[in-house]
Amino acid sequence: MNINGTPFRTIWPHPTEEGVVQIIDQRHLPHRFVIVDLRTLEDFEVAIRDMLVRGAPLIGSAAAYGMYVAARSVVAPQFFDEKMREAAARLKATRPTAVNLAYAVDRVMQEVGSSTVGSWQSGNGELAVAEQIAKIRQTAEDITEESVAHCRSIGEHGLKLIEAIFEKKSQLSSTDHRSPTTVNILTHCNAGWLACIDHGTATAPIYAAHDRGIPVHVWVDETRPRNQGASLTAFELKEHGVPHTVIADNTGGHLMQHGLVDMVIVGTDRTTRTGDVANKIGTYLKALAAADNGVPFYVAVPSSSIDWSLRNGLTEIPIEQRDATEVHCISGLDEKSGEVREVRLTPMGSPAANYAFDVTPARLVTGLITERGVCEASEQALAQFFPDK
Amino acid sequence: MNINGTPFRTIWPHPTEEGVVQIIDQRHLPHRFVIVDLRTLEDFEVAIRDMLVRGAPLIGSAAAYGMYVAARSVVAPQFFDEKMREAAARLKATRPTAVNLAYAVDRVMQEVGSSTVGSWQSGNGELAVAEQIAKIRQTAEDITEESVAHCRSIGEHGLKLIEAIFEKKSQLSSTDHRSPTTVNILTHCNAGWLACIDHGTATAPIYAAHDRGIPVHVWVDETRPRNQGASLTAFELKEHGVPHTVIADNTGGHLMQHGLVDMVIVGTDRTTRTGDVANKIGTYLKALAAADNGVPFYVAVPSSSIDWSLRNGLTEIPIEQRDATEVHCISGLDEKSGEVREVRLTPMGSPAANYAFDVTPARLVTGLITERGVCEASEQALAQFFPDK
Repeated sequence: MNINGTPFRTIWPHPTEEGVVQIIDQRHLPHRFVIVDLRTLEDFEVAIRDMLVRGAPLIGSAAAYGMYVAARSVVAPQFFDEKMREAAARLKATRPTAVNLAYAVDRVMQEVGSSTVGSWQSGNGELAVAEQIAKIRQTAEDITEESVAHCRSIGEHGLKLIEAIFEKKSQLSSTDHRSPTTVNILTHCNAGWLACIDHGTATAPIYAAHDRGIPVHVWVDETRPRNQGASLTAFELKEHGVPHTVIADNTGGHLMQHGLVDMVIVGTDRTTRTGDVANKIGTYLKALAAADNGVPFYVAVPSSSIDWSLRNGLTEIPIEQRDATEVHCISGLDEKSGEVREVRLTPMGSPAANYAFDVTPARLVTGLITERGVCEASEQALAQFFPDK
Repeated sequence: MNINGTPFRTIWPHPTEEGVVQIIDQRHLPHRFVIVDLRTLEDFEVAIRDMLVRGAPLIGSAAAYGMYVAARSVVAPQFFDEKMREAAARLKATRPTAVNLAYAVDRVMQEVGSSTVGSWQSGNGELAVAEQIAKIRQTAEDITEESVAHCRSIGEHGLKLIEAIFEKKSQLSSTDHRSPTTVNILTHCNAGWLACIDHGTATAPIYAAHDRGIPVHVWVDETRPRNQGASLTAFELKEHGVPHTVIADNTGGHLMQHGLVDMVIVGTDRTTRTGDVANKIGTYLKALAAADNGVPFYVAVPSSSIDWSLRNGLTEIPIEQRDATEVHCISGLDEKSGEVREVRLTPMGSPAANYAFDVTPARLVTGLITERGVCEASEQALAQFFPDK
């Protein structure tokens, strides 16, 4: 999507230097836009571990490119397989719970595994390694492009939902001039293109609608404690030119009570085969408000985030508790000095708890927007859409 | 309640200097505890307008003491009534929408009005003024003590609700040793003693239970955007020694889904005769979660906050929109420098909206804890409790 009028992805091969990958260092957003070159396996480890890149699809792509950069650095062909196994272990250790990371690394290793160690030792080692590196680079590109394609499909399927609301509001508006036609969409956290490679998941339908000229406006939950809404979603919508308004997480219910929200679209970290949705803490509260006010509540679900082994989100999905410091303190731009500073919000001596996710039961979800279409949040509907799972 | 082991109120006459009133300057909480002397009418205007004191009952008491200090400063008896009218107008202008402020000032003015201007001119002016000042001081004390008494009563009535939950949990615990007996109470914003003179409204039952030895633990919503929970409620609970944990506003639903909240108690800014409750933005979301999980949801309602002229909270209570800066920026302690700083959270160019309150419909309220007892949130029940209204 666009940054200051120029199209960007969150990760891309350096345009002129082979073996170098570039990323947006998201730690500085929204206050500074910093591009970082990743040249070594260590660079990728730091980028993933220290959250220069974040979001499941982006981490997967970064890990695959990390394997590619690691492969290029192998000097002795006979150690290639061993070095790749080491790189795989190091990359997997950076964010142990990220499913896409393990998937991407394992998929690259399948390529490595399909070679024969013998070939390294047969005197054709260097040629074999060059072929391997090319294959690994292709795999990293494939993983990246598949992810973009899934987001694009989610955008197209979700677009139809927005179009339908727009048409309904337009009809109302032609008979009642007070009723504006802008489609107001509330989102929580950042399931945007910054978490992916491009388009995003929850934001993909929004960008698709905006780019087709449908008037959309986004209510952006700030999403305490890590404020991914205020810092990332607001940033990417602003840069792409999508009208939006940042609100405190407390505000969405009031807006829905007063007819100021036409639909909710959120992302998901993990979805059960029955349609229960684990997403950023606070999602459940918005789903309750949506249900109470007849506002449709959609979840953008790339099938990679469905955990087919789970049936009950509330009892089976473990909820990560993060460091209490994220509740006690917050970072922001000190406008006087121009520096980003952390300030403490709570009294010394008051404990804090920091649950990272909550589970929205399927009964509160109007529909799941997958790359194959929009389906009901139920085991039956999901099984029909994904008979191969 | 206690600060560092010493009992405090939020406002009190200076112990040795007649005509001086002391307050806690709440702008510095929770990072610094600062006591300020108010000596002139101007001091009171600044204290109310700049929110050194906040919370309806405390503002009322401060305004009444402001009238007392203004009365003492009158030099010429023949101008006493005129000067008092001027003081009344100036104090009322400090926070135009605060109901308790106007009530307190008007009640003092009734005292002034009951004197005869003639007496100033009959040569007994100075004696008459001295009597007036004594009466005004008494009125300020009466307003203050009535407010404290109402909070104490709310505490006693709410205490019974906490005791009942404690007894139920104790019975369960005696048969199931995994079940702890601590009563977990969630609250939103600050309806604590810092908003009142003592005890608070929503916190009064909590302090009463804690002081009787019932084990309570409070989940404190931080309450963005102004963070009254993280800064004020956490501070006062910590200082009084009540176990508590600060959480992001997004967290309460998850806690209720997992049985970690036994009851919710919140305050109210304005309650309709039908039991609809306007309170800090986000209260409605917690009421929805409580209803969805069978958690009792109580509102502490001093009868002074009931607006008997209103029937429908959603359509009739106007919701104040405050400055967007409160969403864009946040203040906290820079632990490196020891200074309180404001930092910006949102990207430059992203708009923000800041609705201050929302309305929780009576259907989501388990009960109203008033100074006369706990009643259902309905027009019939309120009318039975307050037949004089």
